Amino acid sequence: MTRILFAVVTIVFLVSCNNINFEKEPSSKYVLVIHGGAGTILKKNMTPEKELEYRAKLEEALLTGGDILSNGGTSLDAVTQTIIVLENSPLFNAGKGAVFTEEGVNEMDASIMDGFTGSAGAVAGVRTIKNPILAARAVMEKSKHVLLTGKGADEFAGKQGLEIVDSNYFYTPNRWNSYEKAKAKRALENEKHGTVGAVALDIYGNLAAGTSTGGMTYKMKGRVGDSPIIGAGTYADNNTCAVSATGHGEYFIRNVVAYDIAALMKYTRVSIKEAANYVILDKLKKIDGSGGIIAVDSTGRFTMTFNTPGMYRGVITSDGLMEVKIFSE
Amino acid sequence: MTRILFAVVTIVFLVSCNNINFEKEPSSKYVLVIHGGAGTILKKNMTPEKELEYRAKLEEALLTGGDILSNGGTSLDAVTQTIIVLENSPLFNAGKGAVFTEEGVNEMDASIMDGFTGSAGAVAGVRTIKNPILAARAVMEKSKHVLLTGKGADEFAGKQGLEIVDSNYFYTPNRWNSYEKAKAKRALENEKHGTVGAVALDIYGNLAAGTSTGGMTYKMKGRVGDSPIIGAGTYADNNTCAVSATGHGEYFIRNVVAYDIAALMKYTRVSIKEAANYVILDKLKKIDGSGGIIAVDSTGRFTMTFNTPGMYRGVITSDGLMEVKIFSE
Repeated sequence: MTRILFAVVTIVFLVSCNNINFEKEPSSKYVLVIHGGAGTILKKNMTPEKELEYRAKLEEALLTGGDILSNGGTSLDAVTQTIIVLENSPLFNAGKGAVFTEEGVNEMDASIMDGFTGSAGAVAGVRTIKNPILAARAVMEKSKHVLLTGKGADEFAGKQGLEIVDSNYFYTPNRWNSYEKAKAKRALENEKHGTVGAVALDIYGNLAAGTSTGGMTYKMKGRVGDSPIIGAGTYADNNTCAVSATGHGEYFIRNVVAYDIAALMKYTRVSIKEAANYVILDKLKKIDGSGGIIAVDSTGRFTMTFNTPGMYRGVITSDGLMEVKIFSE
Repeated sequence: MTRILFAVVTIVFLVSCNNINFEKEPSSKYVLVIHGGAGTILKKNMTPEKELEYRAKLEEALLTGGDILSNGGTSLDAVTQTIIVLENSPLFNAGKGAVFTEEGVNEMDASIMDGFTGSAGAVAGVRTIKNPILAARAVMEKSKHVLLTGKGADEFAGKQGLEIVDSNYFYTPNRWNSYEKAKAKRALENEKHGTVGAVALDIYGNLAAGTSTGGMTYKMKGRVGDSPIIGAGTYADNNTCAVSATGHGEYFIRNVVAYDIAALMKYTRVSIKEAANYVILDKLKKIDGSGGIIAVDSTGRFTMTFNTPGMYRGVITSDGLMEVKIFSE
């Protein structure tokens, strides 16, 4: 009798631990989805050369993360290294290609979340860290905090041995031109949201999500969007999904976009696609909240959903799918 | 036939607009709930004089907001003015009574959200604004942004004509002693979370929520907790509820606490009390996420839920209820 009771208790315990994967055999299934920003990205405004450049960089990012996942690396590592490729490119509004604030400086935000442990890290308003996503990860792994802002975050990254660069590193002629234009109009440049992000499922069944951005051109000093906000720009939970967002950050914060998709899956049992469609194409669209998300669930289903004319995006999976897209279909 | 169709369409439209209260007659029903922080607040550690001081200040805050609501003021105004009373008192960890960071300075966070329009404002890491809740409100009403951090937020508040004070204003002997103790131990002071907050339902049926804090004693420079994060520390939506949280901020951010309560109500149709119990007493308690929340829904039902030994809290309603409590029952 005691034995039967013990067996029942053990089974109940194991079932209730289904999100803790210690008893799961690694599968060979993995998925990596990335974005490089959503907005008014139209074929007619793109030269063939520019389009090739974007496609090549998105592919490089996918292959970097895909390699990590296919070699048994974690979703956290895949997300981190994939985002570093995009941060190091001047094409995207993150790291090297970050846009300029009202003051003509770069203030960057990034965050990362581990769907297995529920831990998270983020930095906001950093000015000297070459790869803000690494700083977000250091906050998660090396501090007791989730969100560090401003100089405190820059100093923390330095102490953790992360690469600190001169502010000149972030100068790119393209972004400076956008800044000059915005300054002349004295208005935010709202048309394109070049935030980058990645979400991944690894062969251990663990999810992770990360996002990195330079924010909006001509944004006010100290303005922070949704990218470093857990629940708004980034969210991951093995029980539901991993999400990274890009768009008009204020709308994404107020609508708690990333977590709302997870909450819909958890509480109403809809699929990841249905949840994303409702939040991005219905809720946000109705209130002119432009942007999109990428998301992957714990079974490997994924979605790239946006309400703008285009979103730089791509996916690579263990099934051999590898796809890069820019415009809406 | 056309007339009937028109009538049906009109009714459907009005029903679907039930959260937009333009056709609602003002009722006389209002509710204001406040908190002054949760934590290891035990009767045995409290002198009768100290307890009286806390009770008197919480009552003053309730009466301030209650007066506004009973005179037809908005939930936003009630929340703002109630929080100002608590910020101006050295008893609570917000405004005047803010705790000190690792560096021995004060860095404060605050946020506010309007359940009618869904708009929100927040400041993080501000050092010179006498009433951070007013700065959060100014961000909501006078900027295109939701979250401003650091010097940018301080400067914005100054430009908006808000009262700027010398950093000495925030010096209180009690908080400095806590800082000295934490410094000697080189550890965060985690035992008590003195954040303040208020949620209100006004006679127009509109909800609002606000939160203000000095964070954690000996926190790292730039550390930001859940208080200025919409969805984590503060959330309001006329369709569900208004929530203000206090607790170990990192856990509240990762669990998107304030919005999770609203999401549970919206997606699973549980009551405000059931939603709060699940999030605070079950989910957070299991992972040692200490703290609590106050919340009110659009029908006036409210809850003050915490998993700590005590929470400074109180409620005032149009039904004549007025109650201040400190310890758990």
